[in-house]
Amino acid sequence: MSRTVYVNGLYLPEEEAKVSVFDRGFLMADGVYEVTSVLGGKLIDFAGHARRLARSLAELEMKNPLTEDELLAIHRELVARNDLVDGMIYLQITRGATDRDFLFPENAEPTVVLFTQSKPGLADNPTAKVGIKVISIPDIRWGRRDIKTVQLLYPSMGKMMARKAGADDAWMVEDGEVTEGTSNNAYIVKGGKIITRHLGNEILHGITRSAVLRFAREAQMEVEERPFTVDEAKAADEAFITSASAFVMPVVQIDGVSLGAGTPGPVALRLREIYLDEMRKAAV
Amino acid sequence: MSRTVYVNGLYLPEEEAKVSVFDRGFLMADGVYEVTSVLGGKLIDFAGHARRLARSLAELEMKNPLTEDELLAIHRELVARNDLVDGMIYLQITRGATDRDFLFPENAEPTVVLFTQSKPGLADNPTAKVGIKVISIPDIRWGRRDIKTVQLLYPSMGKMMARKAGADDAWMVEDGEVTEGTSNNAYIVKGGKIITRHLGNEILHGITRSAVLRFAREAQMEVEERPFTVDEAKAADEAFITSASAFVMPVVQIDGVSLGAGTPGPVALRLREIYLDEMRKAAV
Repeated sequence: MSRTVYVNGLYLPEEEAKVSVFDRGFLMADGVYEVTSVLGGKLIDFAGHARRLARSLAELEMKNPLTEDELLAIHRELVARNDLVDGMIYLQITRGATDRDFLFPENAEPTVVLFTQSKPGLADNPTAKVGIKVISIPDIRWGRRDIKTVQLLYPSMGKMMARKAGADDAWMVEDGEVTEGTSNNAYIVKGGKIITRHLGNEILHGITRSAVLRFAREAQMEVEERPFTVDEAKAADEAFITSASAFVMPVVQIDGVSLGAGTPGPVALRLREIYLDEMRKAAV
Repeated sequence: MSRTVYVNGLYLPEEEAKVSVFDRGFLMADGVYEVTSVLGGKLIDFAGHARRLARSLAELEMKNPLTEDELLAIHRELVARNDLVDGMIYLQITRGATDRDFLFPENAEPTVVLFTQSKPGLADNPTAKVGIKVISIPDIRWGRRDIKTVQLLYPSMGKMMARKAGADDAWMVEDGEVTEGTSNNAYIVKGGKIITRHLGNEILHGITRSAVLRFAREAQMEVEERPFTVDEAKAADEAFITSASAFVMPVVQIDGVSLGAGTPGPVALRLREIYLDEMRKAAV
């Protein structure tokens, strides 16, 4: 069945959901995005995603064409029109369509696209019970990874490198230290302490990261925000990733080295449980 | 008047030239491009661009959907349909449209888009007589600049930084050395010697660069392919850039420092003349 997709004010069958070939999102990756999870027909941490979207747009001097209320209304309309129970809503805003020029256009109207992806049972993903395997790869992305742009070619290549190596994802390494996963933030646990890279231009400021660290601290878990090396990760008791659609996902192997017992660790599993419980309660 | 644009086998009025919102070029910058100049209705160095396109596609494990002959036929058809005398033909190929996933799709058909940009008198650009001013900015792009991808957000931001600083373009600097301009290769001239960065993953392998260096050597000019610093550039006798649409363009100021007499240098002007003469003769 065809999805209903939002494009610049219109709700269209996905086959008709198109943008101009002159769109700067298509020609120059001049756009930003957000992915919000939906559980039981409700939006998970919508406010967090709306806040980060506004920040990404501001960093690129792009107009924010929608108020948070308008954005919420479109998200809800897409959930309704697509009978979405569990899954994601993808949102992308670009600087709009104009004749191709490196200089930002003065009068272009931003392009706004949203679509749904249905993932029945998203929160009960059986992978969370066995954990994922990651490999390490060099982080050769641009220097402003804190802006959530559509420049996702290298993360996409990284995911392919992982698959070819028989793994599920890749952790990117810069100057000997792990930055993050291809589409998620990376964590290790040692002696009960949760270690994850501090915020900066080097990593995405994960919305899920922010919530998970808050819940961890509220649960009296110790959190240290600092870089860690691949060797430190291999010697950790456990590891995990967080993202809007993976929530908290245990990592059981890094570059072929099993962590602890090679099964999901207690900290990751506990945080996943707390995160899902709390976010379902706060869903809108 | 509306241009005729090529999209996946169809010649369409530009208003109807669209791609799916699910195109990986739009969602993930998973695409490559080429820009070929047209002078007097003929293509400049078409073979060079076709060769680099094939290389970019191969580096990204993307299918090349068109033979060089087919590509040439589309270029010529667009010149004819748009009565293009002087200007450019822009070509973009993406991995195609599929539901959004970081993993490369197995069955997607590449998206092929070409459009024209008319620039009457392109080869007589009066700017070449006065030269351009550049500023230096940090090079924070990804590590595979040798692949001509559409990840052009930072070059676009760089052009805006230049404009705000009252300059025309920006030279990007990494580890103290100039890599290249935002959409061109960078050169300095000192004591009659032409110095430009060697090929590698750090810069685009310019088609115009290749031709210009060949013509320079044929004209008995000394060429040294190695990195140079911004300070070395400021102390140079002259400087210039090359690109498919700027050809050879003199640079007369770097970060506010005038080079030599502050006017286009003889090497740049001579190379521009040779390049245009030779390439017009070889145009197809």
